[in-house]
Amino acid sequence: MPDVLISEVGPRDGLQSIDRVMPTEAKKRWIAAEAAAGVREIEVGSFVPPSLLPQMADSAEIVAYARTIPGLNVVALVPNAKGAARAVEAGAHAISIPFSMSETHSLKNVRKSHAEMLEEIAAIAVLAREGGVHFAVGLSTAFGCTMEGPVDEGAVVRLAVAAAEAGAQEFSLSDTTGYANPAQVRRLVRAVRAEVGAERMTTLHLHNTRGLGLANALAGLDEGITTLDSSLGGLGGCPFAPGASGNIVTEDLVFMLEAMGVDTGIDLDALLAVRAILAEALPGEPLYGFTPDAGLPLGFERQTA
Amino acid sequence: MPDVLISEVGPRDGLQSIDRVMPTEAKKRWIAAEAAAGVREIEVGSFVPPSLLPQMADSAEIVAYARTIPGLNVVALVPNAKGAARAVEAGAHAISIPFSMSETHSLKNVRKSHAEMLEEIAAIAVLAREGGVHFAVGLSTAFGCTMEGPVDEGAVVRLAVAAAEAGAQEFSLSDTTGYANPAQVRRLVRAVRAEVGAERMTTLHLHNTRGLGLANALAGLDEGITTLDSSLGGLGGCPFAPGASGNIVTEDLVFMLEAMGVDTGIDLDALLAVRAILAEALPGEPLYGFTPDAGLPLGFERQTA
Repeated sequence: MPDVLISEVGPRDGLQSIDRVMPTEAKKRWIAAEAAAGVREIEVGSFVPPSLLPQMADSAEIVAYARTIPGLNVVALVPNAKGAARAVEAGAHAISIPFSMSETHSLKNVRKSHAEMLEEIAAIAVLAREGGVHFAVGLSTAFGCTMEGPVDEGAVVRLAVAAAEAGAQEFSLSDTTGYANPAQVRRLVRAVRAEVGAERMTTLHLHNTRGLGLANALAGLDEGITTLDSSLGGLGGCPFAPGASGNIVTEDLVFMLEAMGVDTGIDLDALLAVRAILAEALPGEPLYGFTPDAGLPLGFERQTA
Repeated sequence: MPDVLISEVGPRDGLQSIDRVMPTEAKKRWIAAEAAAGVREIEVGSFVPPSLLPQMADSAEIVAYARTIPGLNVVALVPNAKGAARAVEAGAHAISIPFSMSETHSLKNVRKSHAEMLEEIAAIAVLAREGGVHFAVGLSTAFGCTMEGPVDEGAVVRLAVAAAEAGAQEFSLSDTTGYANPAQVRRLVRAVRAEVGAERMTTLHLHNTRGLGLANALAGLDEGITTLDSSLGGLGGCPFAPGASGNIVTEDLVFMLEAMGVDTGIDLDALLAVRAILAEALPGEPLYGFTPDAGLPLGFERQTA
């Protein structure tokens, strides 16, 4: 097992953020190529109504395909119990539901209060258990909300505990809005871990909206975070920040970790080559990342060998 | 005193990296505006032959002007003893010489071996002492060299000790090439501090070539670094990485620190407004930074008040 698990979320978070629909065949090539480069977990799609997100209409087919790749953990995002049932049926290894810590954001985004979301989480937990599927909850807008502003850290901890009691097996802290800073990451990871257990508070989902994404990742690693979400080429961008990637960029994250001597199990040259699939399938779509432009340092392999 | 001193290097490192020459009057407005925003140290110019760097031809006038701004520490870069004499005469509070840890880079860049550089440092130390000027040495290419590749960390420590013995009062570790990673920053800061003393190993000079600049800054802060160099708008860019800033971006760095509750003494809104001076004086020149594009988080002031 690698020291840190990179969970590629581009086929879900990246693709749902752009208007164009990537052909199913290109999604499959992307997923296969990343898995071949050593990526061991991919969030491959989302079980939302295709009328809302046509980009995700082929998620069942993509899950079924991804399941054929040996050693790959196949994750699907679900917005509710109905989506969870579809994801379980499609054969996902794990499902993840975003649970917005800002109730304003939750009401606006999925028209559910915190209490209603906890009921949904309990219903999904039953489905997941019966289906033998791992069930994670993403504590979204945990670091601040574009509608509410600061989000109370005590409330995040209480909602995580309530979700654990409702049956969530694992948690991700999500900087949905790109508001997080390293001190806050350290505080919040520590606070949630203290209540739900370190073995369940494993993951950070970071955006690079204000350029702090990798610094926040580093802060999380210092606190023992073992899984980091990221997106190849920072696909999807950030609608509020021209030039800014959406999720942190997989290529830069893997470069940072491997340069630090933290094993990701990923072959960086092979990972960089996967960008060509995105460039070909989505011509003109901006791809982000500093390392792809700058190239690897001279003698990089020798340094980490 | 702020918790962390931001040393703005844009008027030197930023401007010398672009072809156009910024009018002296615009440089003065820039320096005055940043000082008014709370920036307490600025590297305002470089005493190199104007035939080599016409962008820096007005450095004596700029130093004299900057000296009239109350509370501002005025730094000048010098390539050798001749430049140091001019900087001391112009009235700089502090001078800084880059000392390349890669001898190949040193020979190529200033045509001097390590031994010759140490002689130069000893001569400058005398000039600085006589002139009552603070004298810092920048350990450049300390994290790797585009010509040599990896740079031996033991050699960096030995050269720092030799420079201290030659009279250097303070040190900066410079990631000239954008090769540094956070683990290496921690190791090297610790190693140099152990030999020359923490009170002398104060500063990091970071570039954002591979997107790790702020993560490296965070690693340095964890080790007790108290001064961080940065450049407004990441001016100058990185010739090897289109889209990448050169130095780390002052705006993003100050946002990270202030969001963490680390006092910089800088008014972020006032700092962001200074970009307009660069945009006006250097039309079409790319300005970098994520925070300027994304804006400050909703309720940011309340969070840090």
